[in-house]
Amino acid sequence: MDVLEQMRLFMEPESIALVGVSRSTDHPFGLLRNLLAYGFSGDIYPVNPSADQILGVRTYPAIKDLPDDIDLTVIMTPRDTTLALVEESVEKGLKAIIIVAQGFGDADEKGKSLQSRIIDTAKRGGARIIGPNTFGVTNAFQSMSTALPMLEMERSPIGIISQTGIPFLGTSRFKFGKIIDIGDTCDIDVADALCYFEEDPEITVVALQIEGIQDGRRFAHVVGRVVKKKPVLVLKGGRSEAGARAALSHTGSIAGADEVYDATFKQRGLIRVNDLEELEDMGLAFSRLPPMKKRGVGVMSWAGSTGVLTVDACDAYGLEVPLLSDAAIDRIRELSPPAWLPIENPVDLWACAGLVKFDAESLKFGFRTIMEALLNQESIGAVLVIIPDFHTLFQSEDWDISEIVHEVAEDYKEQPIVFSILGAWGKTTERLEEKRNMVVFRSHERAVRALSRLWEYAAISNPDSRL
Amino acid sequence: MDVLEQMRLFMEPESIALVGVSRSTDHPFGLLRNLLAYGFSGDIYPVNPSADQILGVRTYPAIKDLPDDIDLTVIMTPRDTTLALVEESVEKGLKAIIIVAQGFGDADEKGKSLQSRIIDTAKRGGARIIGPNTFGVTNAFQSMSTALPMLEMERSPIGIISQTGIPFLGTSRFKFGKIIDIGDTCDIDVADALCYFEEDPEITVVALQIEGIQDGRRFAHVVGRVVKKKPVLVLKGGRSEAGARAALSHTGSIAGADEVYDATFKQRGLIRVNDLEELEDMGLAFSRLPPMKKRGVGVMSWAGSTGVLTVDACDAYGLEVPLLSDAAIDRIRELSPPAWLPIENPVDLWACAGLVKFDAESLKFGFRTIMEALLNQESIGAVLVIIPDFHTLFQSEDWDISEIVHEVAEDYKEQPIVFSILGAWGKTTERLEEKRNMVVFRSHERAVRALSRLWEYAAISNPDSRL
Repeated sequence: MDVLEQMRLFMEPESIALVGVSRSTDHPFGLLRNLLAYGFSGDIYPVNPSADQILGVRTYPAIKDLPDDIDLTVIMTPRDTTLALVEESVEKGLKAIIIVAQGFGDADEKGKSLQSRIIDTAKRGGARIIGPNTFGVTNAFQSMSTALPMLEMERSPIGIISQTGIPFLGTSRFKFGKIIDIGDTCDIDVADALCYFEEDPEITVVALQIEGIQDGRRFAHVVGRVVKKKPVLVLKGGRSEAGARAALSHTGSIAGADEVYDATFKQRGLIRVNDLEELEDMGLAFSRLPPMKKRGVGVMSWAGSTGVLTVDACDAYGLEVPLLSDAAIDRIRELSPPAWLPIENPVDLWACAGLVKFDAESLKFGFRTIMEALLNQESIGAVLVIIPDFHTLFQSEDWDISEIVHEVAEDYKEQPIVFSILGAWGKTTERLEEKRNMVVFRSHERAVRALSRLWEYAAISNPDSRL
Repeated sequence: MDVLEQMRLFMEPESIALVGVSRSTDHPFGLLRNLLAYGFSGDIYPVNPSADQILGVRTYPAIKDLPDDIDLTVIMTPRDTTLALVEESVEKGLKAIIIVAQGFGDADEKGKSLQSRIIDTAKRGGARIIGPNTFGVTNAFQSMSTALPMLEMERSPIGIISQTGIPFLGTSRFKFGKIIDIGDTCDIDVADALCYFEEDPEITVVALQIEGIQDGRRFAHVVGRVVKKKPVLVLKGGRSEAGARAALSHTGSIAGADEVYDATFKQRGLIRVNDLEELEDMGLAFSRLPPMKKRGVGVMSWAGSTGVLTVDACDAYGLEVPLLSDAAIDRIRELSPPAWLPIENPVDLWACAGLVKFDAESLKFGFRTIMEALLNQESIGAVLVIIPDFHTLFQSEDWDISEIVHEVAEDYKEQPIVFSILGAWGKTTERLEEKRNMVVFRSHERAVRALSRLWEYAAISNPDSRL
């Protein structure tokens, strides 16, 4: 079986065997209950020697009693029973096995020895294993997850390969549409999982949360191919020496010198992120926004001060805030700000966009005029708008600019439009986010950081696209 | 009048004259309406030549018709009328004047000339000016603000001195209890405002959002005094050359070489922040948490991976994740995790705290035991806990750890306790935040950054306090 067929057994199963389902169904973690609640449409085969049915689903006393050709097997029992169950699974001809328990390669000698016997058994039978020490997989597009806690499902185009259960919790802004938690990686590894996402039409952004990679050559080869098609984000723990030691103790994987990883990531065109928040930001940016093809950012700012901070941030992240053409300045000048007001990029919205007149219609007209003037500039590849939530500030519907912004975004599909909202988020923010053709960030600095990665990636995905 | 008395006229007025109040009271910005809505208990004297009353408040045709000894005067008219109104105010003997309009020192020659005449006039009459180009001041403890938009008031112990209106919008987590927006700073400057906060018992954390400082010597002298009593956070725009140019164009203040500022900030013990989010984090940390007196962080992590990332972050921010004593390890071992599980700092909660048993009571007991074991370590100055929101994850009240955490925080008042919540925030997060004796951060990285600043500041505020 080639790797893609193999991965599809894990990720798109039509039938799942659950080995180690408890009869008590009221504790917070219950895989059978979860799958029923998600509305998973495939067949579920719980294995339990002392029940006929659980939650109305027929159970089987042992693996050998299961029907043939079940796609995916999840073994949830404690470590000491695992080897025997893997042997039974292999005898039964099962080909895709998830091992949830921990205590193998990352633990004592006994665990290590169990793990190597599990690997041998699987190899002999032509079976592949995800884990041990894993929550398994999630495929929201199929309402399927093998994670023990009940998850909120979201069919987002962001897929993740991880060595930890953290991605199952989602981020504060989105859930991952597909998750492959390779855990302690005794068999299926990052490269195998990447091969699946490479060909997956539902996933447009691939994230990695990893601590170490065993087969560096194969990884580099595969990931180098994937980044040509889809952006690959990577959050790698064990950056510091102390962190690498901590990684060793919990997954048994040697994190290795961070410089080696960093060089590989750079050379292959991965987008490295430093923490979970940056992973969240980049997931949003790359899944919603077009490539940034010019280095210049047009900035519309509620206040001069946030304009200045944004210029600082652009400088730090290698972007530019170019001067405007005379034509653009004239166009903005026609909005009739005071004659003495200097008009430049960043454009100060307070003075330019009808705010001085306290007139909502002028504000909306000004908003559109300035956005378009910026987006039409030769040198500008993206627009960043920094404003308070107008619904919250003015306590009125009149100042709702979201419709205008959506119209402009529709007209200028090839340039990223991003927002940063000052103070508390409210209805304006919610409406801006509704269409998912832009991203609202929690700070101007995070917005600029995201744009800079879009700019860098444009050179990787399509070297000729940058202007 | 000394600077403190002078600043109290601005910040704690018993009477306010509003010059330039419109009769139309339905547009979104209305200072008179706002003050009434806030419930400001002082006297309000609107000046309007063509009305007898506005919103039921008696108006006065001109400044000369006002009663004597009004504490604070706010002039809200366009720039061309301002000089004459300042002259009238000075003649009337008014001593504290806020000028809202822009178009003076930061604008054309006419604006510059107007500004210098305004300064001369004020000096002659012994009046002081905040502004121009300012929203003025806010004092939530007196339900008072001169900002044009209606604000949400919060009596937070965080005060800010700014050259921009941004702080009036608040942050996404708190509002500033007092705001002094010195705007283009033709008279009252950062040092004057600092003198006020220095003596203010309601404010325990002082923030600055500035672009340039005119009298560097006096600033350095005053701020050096203040940081001994209260932490001073500073967000300074114009870090890059391009940013400095942008700053010049909108406030007329020369941002100056950033290195000079940076050196002064360091030498005087200010805590520099890079963006509004960091300002928010540090405001929370310094207003709620005790000093961090030892460099070591005890980490409790839901997953090994977030433990590793936290060790990396501690390393990057100059903190340590020390090894545990045998006694602490034994204490945690008694919680009966599997024998093969290595127990160290970071402590893996999944395995240690009753989660493997899926038992809420064991989790709570384990949570308390581990927190206390860490807080009792010789080398540990603070504890960071990284967990999902348990209410959200388990969809049950049973797993509510907030009460236990509050009890521990009460018992260990001298060590900062911080949290980072993975995924979406829910009821657990809300309850943890309720008592304000800890801070929940949006990422482990931001939590570590905050701890590192608490550690640095401990050496500044009280050099003997660090152990």
